[in-house]
Amino acid sequence: MMKHKTGSLFIISAPSGAGKTSLVKELLTRIEHLTVSTSHTTRAARQGEENGKDYFFVDEQKFKSMINDNEFLEYAYVFNHYYGTAKQSIEVDLKEGKNIILEIDWQGARQIKSLLRSAVSIFVLPPDYHSLQERLHGRHGNDKDIVDSRMQMATEEMSHFKEYDYIVINDDFDEAVDELQSIIHATNLGCCRQSEFYEQFVAEIMAQQP
Amino acid sequence: MMKHKTGSLFIISAPSGAGKTSLVKELLTRIEHLTVSTSHTTRAARQGEENGKDYFFVDEQKFKSMINDNEFLEYAYVFNHYYGTAKQSIEVDLKEGKNIILEIDWQGARQIKSLLRSAVSIFVLPPDYHSLQERLHGRHGNDKDIVDSRMQMATEEMSHFKEYDYIVINDDFDEAVDELQSIIHATNLGCCRQSEFYEQFVAEIMAQQP
Repeated sequence: MMKHKTGSLFIISAPSGAGKTSLVKELLTRIEHLTVSTSHTTRAARQGEENGKDYFFVDEQKFKSMINDNEFLEYAYVFNHYYGTAKQSIEVDLKEGKNIILEIDWQGARQIKSLLRSAVSIFVLPPDYHSLQERLHGRHGNDKDIVDSRMQMATEEMSHFKEYDYIVINDDFDEAVDELQSIIHATNLGCCRQSEFYEQFVAEIMAQQP
Repeated sequence: MMKHKTGSLFIISAPSGAGKTSLVKELLTRIEHLTVSTSHTTRAARQGEENGKDYFFVDEQKFKSMINDNEFLEYAYVFNHYYGTAKQSIEVDLKEGKNIILEIDWQGARQIKSLLRSAVSIFVLPPDYHSLQERLHGRHGNDKDIVDSRMQMATEEMSHFKEYDYIVINDDFDEAVDELQSIIHATNLGCCRQSEFYEQFVAEIMAQQP
């Protein structure tokens, strides 16, 4: 039986307001065998959010027991709530050949990279400061304190861009999606990454020799 | 002044008959700032070949003096003639932001990789043994000895696929071109590779902060 290629894990980070979520949404319509990892969280579901789709909503006791049982690839405590990526679903998806996107911040990215060296990390940059500010105003209105504090967080996040494998500048939306797509496709052609697949492929070519 | 991105050097190897030359030709029509390196050779120009375009045609004395002066990134002696890639033109093109393709065999690829670690190597595989054989028959007619010896060389070349960064299987032509294109585009988004460009870009974003 012919082996199939394995999937890869892609970490995508960006300062809030860089347009990461829209990029990922478009990417999902373009690439087959691509999925976004569903995180666990202790925060309450917002209106319209589905358990198991947007998040796995669990209580703090359950989350902490999962931490103790070493079930997370990464987790963080942000704005009074826990967020985490469970190992199990990821491992199954990768073996099945799915590519998985994780939308996490630089701290989560570091945790993942230390546990899973083959993960590929991508940082999305805004084209300039003003577009970032505009998007945050659009999201949080004119509450200066909130916008300022989010801008500060965005600046902090952005200062870690150098820890990533790839950088995509979200200036032209379609171009940025193309770039993300190229990174995912190229990764799937990596010789080491797909060594079992290619070894079998070449062995089968050789076996056809008369 | 805004820095521009630097180019990268792409080594493409394949067993003779895998369709490498047609793939590269198509790739050149699709990607801007992409060029194929012109090699030096001591073999005579064939009809229609232009000096400086197909090859730089030089005599053996000149070639050997270039070897002595350490002017080659790689060279080889094949079928009684020397073939080599001069350093100078490559360095200029890379700085100008051009991506360069080198079509060389596994021995040349090894030489280049040892001198220029940032070079990206791609191996093109045929979809199966028979298509390889058919293409060699098309090229060399029914002279069994020639076809057999070329098949042997192709098999030898193919046995080195594992030394490459990426593998592209030339089954569907358009798909294979897409894959090569993704590898080139993704490489140009590498964070380390373009560190000067991205550092300046982020510094300029930060400087716009009010």
